[in-house]
Amino acid sequence: MKIPVLEVFGPTIQGEGAVIGRKTMFVRTAGCDFRCSWCDSKFTWDGTAKDDIRMMTAEDIFSELQAVGGNRFNHVTISGGNPALIKGIGSLVSLIHEHGFEVALETQGSKFQNWMTDIDQLTISPKPPSSQMIQDLTILDEVIQQLPQENISLKVVTFDETDYQFAKMIHQRYPDIKFYLQVGNPYLDDTVSHHTEKLLNHYERLIDRVMTDDTMNQVFVTPQLHTLLWSNKKGV
Amino acid sequence: MKIPVLEVFGPTIQGEGAVIGRKTMFVRTAGCDFRCSWCDSKFTWDGTAKDDIRMMTAEDIFSELQAVGGNRFNHVTISGGNPALIKGIGSLVSLIHEHGFEVALETQGSKFQNWMTDIDQLTISPKPPSSQMIQDLTILDEVIQQLPQENISLKVVTFDETDYQFAKMIHQRYPDIKFYLQVGNPYLDDTVSHHTEKLLNHYERLIDRVMTDDTMNQVFVTPQLHTLLWSNKKGV
Repeated sequence: MKIPVLEVFGPTIQGEGAVIGRKTMFVRTAGCDFRCSWCDSKFTWDGTAKDDIRMMTAEDIFSELQAVGGNRFNHVTISGGNPALIKGIGSLVSLIHEHGFEVALETQGSKFQNWMTDIDQLTISPKPPSSQMIQDLTILDEVIQQLPQENISLKVVTFDETDYQFAKMIHQRYPDIKFYLQVGNPYLDDTVSHHTEKLLNHYERLIDRVMTDDTMNQVFVTPQLHTLLWSNKKGV
Repeated sequence: MKIPVLEVFGPTIQGEGAVIGRKTMFVRTAGCDFRCSWCDSKFTWDGTAKDDIRMMTAEDIFSELQAVGGNRFNHVTISGGNPALIKGIGSLVSLIHEHGFEVALETQGSKFQNWMTDIDQLTISPKPPSSQMIQDLTILDEVIQQLPQENISLKVVTFDETDYQFAKMIHQRYPDIKFYLQVGNPYLDDTVSHHTEKLLNHYERLIDRVMTDDTMNQVFVTPQLHTLLWSNKKGV
């Protein structure tokens, strides 16, 4: 079973979520069932990078991780697109584990795969209204019910008050799962000046919102470290 | 047993370490056995705030947490100075737990107290050479041996290559404990311009150093979110 791959890069830091700051390698798969308006990796699904997609076996991918990252990593993050669409990820997870390394993976929770139970840090990020997607909460329930609670976290990207209310609803639906509010990045155009300063302003407003809300106590509020550092640059 | 307190504030986010981003209240105690050259809270030990120290019972402190934070928190971070100097912290930890809240605490690992085993997230941050302190590693060993490994993390603030080598030595001494490299903040003077940009430059250099080092794979590299947002402002 082959895996459609668009990027293999690192080591770098994980910029977001439950293992923010972790030294890791990235594997980015092609293909997504969503079309989020503010997606920062549209090339994974909009056809613009379709000639760059490589169909690779788990062994191919692991060899490339070693070629790129040498012995300078022991953690791999699989992102997309939505890697949960791809059945073959299971053999990649097994291979990474055989080498004694950990695996993180990010998905929106729209599809379950058996290999998800083996992911060391699985981030499920339901998409808020500003994405213009409709998250199917029945499917999300079914996905979450099948996962070991200690290995998963929820992350909701938040651009505005409507998104914030969605985030709150998700947190209240799954109160025992580690919950991250992540500030959205509206500046996908790298020509925007003072990008970091603007992102930090948005982040501060999100913090202010959460701090005054007594229904949002058991939460983490985080930026994307990589966008603060590197804006929208690919491969870091 | 009373506790010398200098600040009670929040809720805000935890800006660093293993629970970076967590909504929390802060209690800052007075007094430290160290005198770090770059300490960002020198007022806790240099005498300049000695008239502001309040001797408070655990009940006094918890009442003040509720007065300041209302019902907008379920997590408390105790920092200093070095709160590990204070025997009375134990009753504060118990009281916070009785309310169903979690407690994080930060100390340099120069002294053990029995109540340390009850802390939900205990950060031990040995001080590197740039601090001009000498960390007693025998005492550090004794402290760490008495703590439940799953609740503790090590954090080393790093300003330069000598500090980095110290960090590496600490990580290798306790390879199974979650390890954070945190970029140092040399700009304690708020008149410094482009503070955030300069801090991010230092952070990026630290990331570069770690990414090329195959002996530092199992690590997190993090900034201080609060200094990116608010420079050295107190009470946030």
